Amino acid sequence: MELWQLPLLFSRLPMFPFFDLAHYVASVMALKEQRGAVEVSVRSPIACWFSAMLHCFGGSVLSSLMLAEPPVGFLAKGTNILLASSVWYFVFYCPQDLFCRCFAFLPLRLLVAGMKEVTRTWKITGGVAHADSHFKDAWLVMVAVGWARGAGGGLISNFEQLVRGVWKPETNELLKMSYPVKVTLIGAVLFTLQHSQYLPIARHNLMFLYTIFLVVSKVTMMLTRSAASPFAPLEAALGHMFFGSQKTPSKLKGEGAASSNGSSVCDRSSEQHHNGVKKRQAKKTE
Amino acid sequence: MELWQLPLLFSRLPMFPFFDLAHYVASVMALKEQRGAVEVSVRSPIACWFSAMLHCFGGSVLSSLMLAEPPVGFLAKGTNILLASSVWYFVFYCPQDLFCRCFAFLPLRLLVAGMKEVTRTWKITGGVAHADSHFKDAWLVMVAVGWARGAGGGLISNFEQLVRGVWKPETNELLKMSYPVKVTLIGAVLFTLQHSQYLPIARHNLMFLYTIFLVVSKVTMMLTRSAASPFAPLEAALGHMFFGSQKTPSKLKGEGAASSNGSSVCDRSSEQHHNGVKKRQAKKTE
Amino acid sequence: MELWQLPLLFSRLPMFPFFDLAHYVASVMALKEQRGAVEVSVRSPIACWFSAMLHCFGGSVLSSLMLAEPPVGFLAKGTNILLASSVWYFVFYCPQDLFCRCFAFLPLRLLVAGMKEVTRTWKITGGVAHADSHFKDAWLVMVAVGWARGAGGGLISNFEQLVRGVWKPETNELLKMSYPVKVTLIGAVLFTLQHSQYLPIARHNLMFLYTIFLVVSKVTMMLTRSAASPFAPLEAALGHMFFGSQKTPSKLKGEGAASSNGSSVCDRSSEQHHNGVKKRQAKKTE
Repeated sequence: MELWQLPLLFSRLPMFPFFDLAHYVASVMALKEQRGAVEVSVRSPIACWFSAMLHCFGGSVLSSLMLAEPPVGFLAKGTNILLASSVWYFVFYCPQDLFCRCFAFLPLRLLVAGMKEVTRTWKITGGVAHADSHFKDAWLVMVAVGWARGAGGGLISNFEQLVRGVWKPETNELLKMSYPVKVTLIGAVLFTLQHSQYLPIARHNLMFLYTIFLVVSKVTMMLTRSAASPFAPLEAALGHMFFGSQKTPSKLKGEGAASSNGSSVCDRSSEQHHNGVKKRQAKKTE
Repeated sequence: MELWQLPLLFSRLPMFPFFDLAHYVASVMALKEQRGAVEVSVRSPIACWFSAMLHCFGGSVLSSLMLAEPPVGFLAKGTNILLASSVWYFVFYCPQDLFCRCFAFLPLRLLVAGMKEVTRTWKITGGVAHADSHFKDAWLVMVAVGWARGAGGGLISNFEQLVRGVWKPETNELLKMSYPVKVTLIGAVLFTLQHSQYLPIARHNLMFLYTIFLVVSKVTMMLTRSAASPFAPLEAALGHMFFGSQKTPSKLKGEGAASSNGSSVCDRSSEQHHNGVKKRQAKKTE
Repeated sequence: MELWQLPLLFSRLPMFPFFDLAHYVASVMALKEQRGAVEVSVRSPIACWFSAMLHCFGGSVLSSLMLAEPPVGFLAKGTNILLASSVWYFVFYCPQDLFCRCFAFLPLRLLVAGMKEVTRTWKITGGVAHADSHFKDAWLVMVAVGWARGAGGGLISNFEQLVRGVWKPETNELLKMSYPVKVTLIGAVLFTLQHSQYLPIARHNLMFLYTIFLVVSKVTMMLTRSAASPFAPLEAALGHMFFGSQKTPSKLKGEGAASSNGSSVCDRSSEQHHNGVKKRQAKKTE
């Protein structure tokens, strides 16, 4: 084996036992960190299990719905379900929370998070190829299905929360994209361009480079504890160029300040009113 | 005919006119008893009709969605729709509420409720067999589709309520299962095991025994007006064994008491505060 | 060409570039007029774009879901998407709002609105024929799919709003039908009857007459700025005959008056109470 063969061998890596397992561990632990999830696991193990399955197989469910294939198809993959269910059981019901404590160890967390990102590449390429087999040369469908398969858990988060009795209509992943959803969209566009042969790069090389970018950015974000997207300057530039958006954060900040001023003004006036009442009462009593 | 042939003959019972009719009557009357349903029937007969159809054919709609079959398929069964629509019309718009008064007569209510439970068995076995024809030997899919077909109206209740302008995200049938949904899940597991030949019992015998259990438990619950599930001790034992759940009801009760204490404390303090203000005012005036 | 050939030629009119364009312009401008839509266009262009696509292709998405066809199918029609996306871009991000100002010119608005109504007829007939190819002689399915295809944007408005972070469960198009949804339902029934040969009229003649009715009623409503449905008397008569509904508007009005009375009574009493307190305080001080 030589060095230039590395991407090709990498692209033949099987996902099944280890990388999928890492994906399940990372997904279910992300669920457990959400507010109210532990209470749901006590109140209703079935709702908790279904929610965990949507976290693990959300991409598969969403892309099936998009292509009018049975959304319960993921239940037919017995071994994967068994694996994900075991992870769910250990994460939520392990005595003295041993499993979670184990994965709170930083190097292990980094390993699991990195391996989960590798599965993302495989899902995007799988989604793009699958969409292409349904609709010939419909590049928007390929982007949509690749995106859905790779970032499904995030995109259906509103309905996943509904299973747990939580409903937050004021936000969703389209209104306020998180970094993983954003990077998956970029990946879906890249792999669609590659699949349509607009990108002069071999598929395994693109997979290799994209995966390295995913893993490195994920690990960096975990180590520096920053949630800042590396695309922020690019987005701001594009937003300014195409959508004429001003620097919204400062504007919003200004609004916030104004409203807090407003409320303080309001408070002040009511205080003054209160004082006035007191004075009048005092006058009367004197 | 001999006695041991009874289960076989029972399993060949046609559902179409009478049992289906009982199912429609029980479902639409359950809808009418829900808060706000009568107002919706006055404001918008179409929303009310659609809601009634979801009550009657919810299982069919949900299992179609799961297997990527047209969810409007139930509309193609003209005679059933006609029957259900007539029931809907008589239940909601009969002059002087004659139809509902008629079915308020206890023996008739028991008969209708019992016959509705018989259709449940037929739906579960139909769902299990239908799922098996799509996915070979995927027992989780069989359980899911059997459950959805048998308890569909309950499982999609959040969205059925949305049709009537009601939205209760804080609860759903997965978070807090009602008895019919629970017993349908058990039935779906049993018939899936039987279908996979893990259960050493003939299909018609299992159908006979399960239906008898359904009807007897339903009638008992209606006569004793208890909503207590016969599975409560079993569930508590399983919950304790696998999910380490403590006796949550007493704990919740304790919390409730604490909060009511809290509020009374709060009231008392505000009252004291109020008294204090009065006293101070009195002092000033004296 | 002679005059009696006009309906036939009309029914062969291609929708593609101009009528579809008018539909996109009218749909996206209707979106922009909704509260909060402009803010969403600044915050998240992707959510805004997806919302605009649901406005333009909502009928296609809904009817695909109903017939278990891929709901992303509309993304495969590249030219239409490009056209709709361009319209979306010009409506929301045109410098100095030139595009919208242009279409605020009344004759142009009337032309666009009239042409949009023509596409409605084509969609309904397309939906009815498509449903018939899936389910033979299921007239309820034909009505449902024709209705969904023609009025899709309205029927899924709850979920379209959810994309923009707005959730109004207390109302939907079934509970309180708007005029376009209502007239589309009537059209779907008429074309289903014609398709099943219960209506002794040729298809192109019905298309011609129905379109003229749509355009004339739309233009009249825009010119007189009235939202009153021309079917109101017919609906009231049918409602009275079949559903025994009383004159609900006056009743609701009465309730409204009662509640405003109630609140004024309440205010008055609190005012009196307030005065009483003052008097008592005054008494004490004297």
